[in-house]
Amino acid sequence: MESAIPQHLETQRTRHKRVPDDYQPPYPSFVARYRPGVSRVVMAYFGVQYRGTAPAAATEAFLEIAERFSAESGPLHWDRARYVDQAGYETIVSVAYWDDIVRFDAWLEPARAAWTGRQREGVGTFIEVLRPIVARHETLFSSPDRPEGVAAIAGGMSGEVQEHAYWGGMRDRIPLSQTDAMTPGGAPELVRDGARLRVRAHDNLCLIRSGQDWSDTEASERKLYLDDVEPVLREGMDFLRDEGLAIGCYANRYMQVLQADGSVSEKSYGQSWWKSLAALERWAESHPTHVRIFGAAMKYLSTLGPSAKLRLYHEVTVAAADEQFFEYLNCHPKTGMLTAVEAVSA
Amino acid sequence: MESAIPQHLETQRTRHKRVPDDYQPPYPSFVARYRPGVSRVVMAYFGVQYRGTAPAAATEAFLEIAERFSAESGPLHWDRARYVDQAGYETIVSVAYWDDIVRFDAWLEPARAAWTGRQREGVGTFIEVLRPIVARHETLFSSPDRPEGVAAIAGGMSGEVQEHAYWGGMRDRIPLSQTDAMTPGGAPELVRDGARLRVRAHDNLCLIRSGQDWSDTEASERKLYLDDVEPVLREGMDFLRDEGLAIGCYANRYMQVLQADGSVSEKSYGQSWWKSLAALERWAESHPTHVRIFGAAMKYLSTLGPSAKLRLYHEVTVAAADEQFFEYLNCHPKTGMLTAVEAVSA
Repeated sequence: MESAIPQHLETQRTRHKRVPDDYQPPYPSFVARYRPGVSRVVMAYFGVQYRGTAPAAATEAFLEIAERFSAESGPLHWDRARYVDQAGYETIVSVAYWDDIVRFDAWLEPARAAWTGRQREGVGTFIEVLRPIVARHETLFSSPDRPEGVAAIAGGMSGEVQEHAYWGGMRDRIPLSQTDAMTPGGAPELVRDGARLRVRAHDNLCLIRSGQDWSDTEASERKLYLDDVEPVLREGMDFLRDEGLAIGCYANRYMQVLQADGSVSEKSYGQSWWKSLAALERWAESHPTHVRIFGAAMKYLSTLGPSAKLRLYHEVTVAAADEQFFEYLNCHPKTGMLTAVEAVSA
Repeated sequence: MESAIPQHLETQRTRHKRVPDDYQPPYPSFVARYRPGVSRVVMAYFGVQYRGTAPAAATEAFLEIAERFSAESGPLHWDRARYVDQAGYETIVSVAYWDDIVRFDAWLEPARAAWTGRQREGVGTFIEVLRPIVARHETLFSSPDRPEGVAAIAGGMSGEVQEHAYWGGMRDRIPLSQTDAMTPGGAPELVRDGARLRVRAHDNLCLIRSGQDWSDTEASERKLYLDDVEPVLREGMDFLRDEGLAIGCYANRYMQVLQADGSVSEKSYGQSWWKSLAALERWAESHPTHVRIFGAAMKYLSTLGPSAKLRLYHEVTVAAADEQFFEYLNCHPKTGMLTAVEAVSA
């Protein structure tokens, strides 16, 4: 049993963990381990938004960004997913990960100019980026052998970690929680730059990407996931999308991961922007849909153990104000972090 | 909105609350407020145990203890309840509360001699006492107008308190949690004194009495409680009684409160002894039955609000080693805290 906090980020605590030192989780979980030299990671969401069937400009955009990803200083890993937002817009998001901000910055400048710096016929585009120090970030995996998202750029996975399967584990896995409450500061502001809209959010904004992969499940386990778990998950995701703002969820996207040929895979993830880690904690602990999901997962993983074929993972970041970037072009006013600022006229 | 921790017990924190200062609970709850001069409370459980119908000695014992309660230095409040334990023994427990240990000590000496100091035909008897400083103790009520248990001896109730309706609220309401993790120390030991068996438990042993009162509910709310809530609660109580030891629950009693005439009322409570507050927290947060109860209560009280007629309350103590007393005479070896010690031969 090891701590989710890597040794080189252990510090003298001024804040306690939520569980005693002899706490034993009821089932195993794992976290991504970056190479010790990695001080920051970058997670960059490149979105395309349109109504109805994909305009030519959308298809062009996907091809173009994929080509850029393959170029010099491109990401170590990326994936693509889709969803239909609350206003009925088809949204395709390509998510890319780096572990070196110098390379990322060099890469981003021309990519940004092309992505949100020029008009595309019939489509909106956006860029949402966090580039946290690793102490502001945590991951969790139900099995150690298939990294997803940011973990795909890590050097490897931990052994079994202690800080999970209890409320508060997410916070306890973030190294900064040893000394910092990660309280949000300030309100999101809109910055207009011609047709481009930028959002300057605030300190300790929180991002979660929380995924499930049922591609390996068979027969009864697959049925259990699709019939009993997925509908409850969807209900929770819909709640956050439609009514999340009142409880501190600025935006939520329940994404279907796409395969290379553009078809839908048997993986999905929820991705949401939160005012604070505390707001995310409160929702997770008290909203009936999430409480049911958590309870079901606890029971499921405690019972099936390593024989469970359903894979669950998440990554959570609490970003400092200067670790964020949000830019939208021709997007409707309730797109992503635009939702967080009052009265945007598109 | 006020803190559950009374002002005169607020100290410089070395440990943080689990929620931010601007946390707003989704429904109101209240705590008992002792007169500021009260530094300790006493909760004393006087049990009678027998098989089948009550022997004459049992009836005598009830009358006798009731008489003693009414005498000089007797408790400010007491009640009586019954349950059938895991070994099939009928168990009647009279619980009494004091707010003055000098009076209690004076009262206890002859009462103890009579209760566990002499044999009674066909019955076992026991005394289980905690006498915590108030900083090691908390209560919670869904409505402020009907105190139960230890709250019946308090001067009154608080206004709406902040620290509830989230996991960790119980700990945050205990004043000592401001500076102390309340980690358990040592293992329970058996002390033989002739036929009397005493258990010397350990530092930070935890007691919860958690009650429900459906006497005011009508029609649909009553049906909801009896059909949907009570069976789930019972399942959780049975789990703790039968399988609790492995997770740190030494003993659990799901009690029916008795009326003055000995008949069963529309009130019940669970009363359990725990190795630590942390063990109680883990069960409450992860056991499917309690998660369902908590989720149901959250939804129920958030929706019905003040119109809910179901009343819920609890009292929790984390006692220092010298604040405890357990004594058993002619009880079977799995009675109460005897369960906590290895291999007792009765």
